[in-house]
Amino acid sequence: MAKLVAKFGGTSVADIERIERAADKVAKEVERGNQVAVVVSAMSGVTNALIEHCSNVDSLYDAREYDSVVASGEQVTAGLMAMALQKRGIAARSWLGWQVPIICSDVHGKARILEINPDELNKRLEKGEVAVLAGVQGITHSGRIATLGRGGSDTTAVALAAALDADRCDIYTDVDGVYTTDPRIVPGASKLKAVSYEEMLEMASLGAKVLQTRSVEMAFKREVPVQVLSSFGDAIGSDLPGTMVVKEEEIMEDHVVNGITYSRDDAKITILNLDDVPGVAAKVFGPLSKANVNVDMIIQDISTDGKLTDMTFTVPRGDAQRAKDVLLKCEDLKGAKIISSTDVAKISVVGIGMRSHAGVAQKMFSALADKGINIQVISTSEIKISVLIAEEYTELAVRTLHNVYGLEHLS
Amino acid sequence: MAKLVAKFGGTSVADIERIERAADKVAKEVERGNQVAVVVSAMSGVTNALIEHCSNVDSLYDAREYDSVVASGEQVTAGLMAMALQKRGIAARSWLGWQVPIICSDVHGKARILEINPDELNKRLEKGEVAVLAGVQGITHSGRIATLGRGGSDTTAVALAAALDADRCDIYTDVDGVYTTDPRIVPGASKLKAVSYEEMLEMASLGAKVLQTRSVEMAFKREVPVQVLSSFGDAIGSDLPGTMVVKEEEIMEDHVVNGITYSRDDAKITILNLDDVPGVAAKVFGPLSKANVNVDMIIQDISTDGKLTDMTFTVPRGDAQRAKDVLLKCEDLKGAKIISSTDVAKISVVGIGMRSHAGVAQKMFSALADKGINIQVISTSEIKISVLIAEEYTELAVRTLHNVYGLEHLS
Repeated sequence: MAKLVAKFGGTSVADIERIERAADKVAKEVERGNQVAVVVSAMSGVTNALIEHCSNVDSLYDAREYDSVVASGEQVTAGLMAMALQKRGIAARSWLGWQVPIICSDVHGKARILEINPDELNKRLEKGEVAVLAGVQGITHSGRIATLGRGGSDTTAVALAAALDADRCDIYTDVDGVYTTDPRIVPGASKLKAVSYEEMLEMASLGAKVLQTRSVEMAFKREVPVQVLSSFGDAIGSDLPGTMVVKEEEIMEDHVVNGITYSRDDAKITILNLDDVPGVAAKVFGPLSKANVNVDMIIQDISTDGKLTDMTFTVPRGDAQRAKDVLLKCEDLKGAKIISSTDVAKISVVGIGMRSHAGVAQKMFSALADKGINIQVISTSEIKISVLIAEEYTELAVRTLHNVYGLEHLS
Repeated sequence: MAKLVAKFGGTSVADIERIERAADKVAKEVERGNQVAVVVSAMSGVTNALIEHCSNVDSLYDAREYDSVVASGEQVTAGLMAMALQKRGIAARSWLGWQVPIICSDVHGKARILEINPDELNKRLEKGEVAVLAGVQGITHSGRIATLGRGGSDTTAVALAAALDADRCDIYTDVDGVYTTDPRIVPGASKLKAVSYEEMLEMASLGAKVLQTRSVEMAFKREVPVQVLSSFGDAIGSDLPGTMVVKEEEIMEDHVVNGITYSRDDAKITILNLDDVPGVAAKVFGPLSKANVNVDMIIQDISTDGKLTDMTFTVPRGDAQRAKDVLLKCEDLKGAKIISSTDVAKISVVGIGMRSHAGVAQKMFSALADKGINIQVISTSEIKISVLIAEEYTELAVRTLHNVYGLEHLS
């Protein structure tokens, strides 16, 4: 007997038929004697429609009201899922964020879960009742509904699994696991049996849209074993058909590189003719930080004449214009010239094995050079190497690297 | 300066444009220095779609889950309305049933409001903040969402007006007041400036679908002045453009009859060859009452031979088959023959002036006789006379009576 959290995303509860199918999976877990808490997203399309309503009323809407409006989507699915389970003879009830309660910070629209009191839920799980939680939502200390932002149901599920001390958190979604890269670009991409939290964290924040980054952070911190698996087909979580996201020590396979990710969400900004004096970086990044613009990859050219230098960095594409405006207004950057480009893609190689294997970066650079792909910016961490290239080379770069690191048809 | 409750029904908040228009009305009331609490229904069509989802999962759904699903409709509108008011520079926030809280009985799907604590709302209204309440919903003592049933937003509005001790409750809807009869049948029907609670109660329960019957009961009991008015056009509640529902003493006009209503929701059941002995009525109505069938108009023929008699009564059309089944199973009614017919309409004449004017009934009966309309059953109260006739005569009867009582073009 295990204690499980099963999360169903929007496409997995897109209509009544799919809710029924998801309920079948939960019923099978219950049949096997498992205790199950379910977390559901809004039916796909619903959240977008609600957001559109809000934007149509006022583009500068009150985030507290937005949260109350948007949270209704998961409320509907939770009730319907509880009904579908009851129809199968399973004791079940829905729980809204404020009913559990799931206490959240009051940063509306991107709140963080502060606390989940598991006592009542645990009592009911032990009696065989399935708890169906509306994802994404919680309640602030002042009694308002707050939401965790896009993909927040993943975080609800992981936080719930942690609070309940569950044996596993199964994330049912429209893909059957975590792949070495996007199968739409590389049809031979391999499904991974397991990835470490650290790798998943890099892959999630680098553009693999399988799990919300914050849910992985939380799983990592609280050591919640997470499985990503498909809600289609007959397998259930306890068959372990998906990809497990677990501690590094628990991974048996020994690949140096586990994934190639890409992202088209960045813009490149270059500042030419900067005075090459100490403190120049602060003059650039101080105002950006104040304007709440996240800077990612940074490169500063070596000054040839000791007087002027160039600096290039990336920002989220949606913030590019604002970043440029902020910099143009800076007194300190008066003589400089600012160029921005959205015609870039970030390609990353991720693998926990990099820590102990030299030459991974070199292999990447030379493979890209062989294909005539120019690297504009590089950034690295212990377990990933990212490069910025011209957007048009995205697919070529991904395919080349997937091949170079031998990721096709991994067992 | 007045304290007002303004309720907007589903058609008045059907889309963003209409929500904006409703917000304009509230803004005008605020401009005039009034304190305003708003109650909103779900956008029209939303509640039906949610109910359909529930029915598609399970026709025997759990009413608690149903309530949680359906209450989301008003939740959305409340948030959007608060945003629309904020856009107009008005301090506003939405309140869900559990946030106020509005304490309800736990009869899910048709709960009753037990208590509304007005302190926090009053404090905010005094500061000029508009409170936007999601209609229909409350919270039970066990912390579940409960709904008041169809038209329940009217009841929320009246209960809120009572709790806040508001000066008036304005019900904005798709008609501009209460009419002497259905204008689709009598184009010359007159809009009434005022009706008494008692009359409105009769008219609401007799088929005039302007206000939920329970909201009128509550307004009557708590003496809340209610105005029914149109949400289209430019007038706002404080211009008093609609129909006031008030205490009898406050009505200036002196019409004997104020309205002609009709309903096609009844079925007629006749039991022939009943033993004419004391207690026979109990033998018929006892089992029906046990089966939760509401009996309305009753007529028992005088027995000519002192042995056998006939009895006719009406039940809601949806319950007719069940009523017949119940009666057919009765041991006591073995020798009797049971006939039912849904081919009937109930036509009623309503007016508080009847109390002091004789001849109102006689006028009705002879007017119908003149048109060759046979009266099948009669029932009366202090302020109304209802007759059951063949359904095909509905429009003719309504037009005839509207004319006979001089209800066209009332000033």
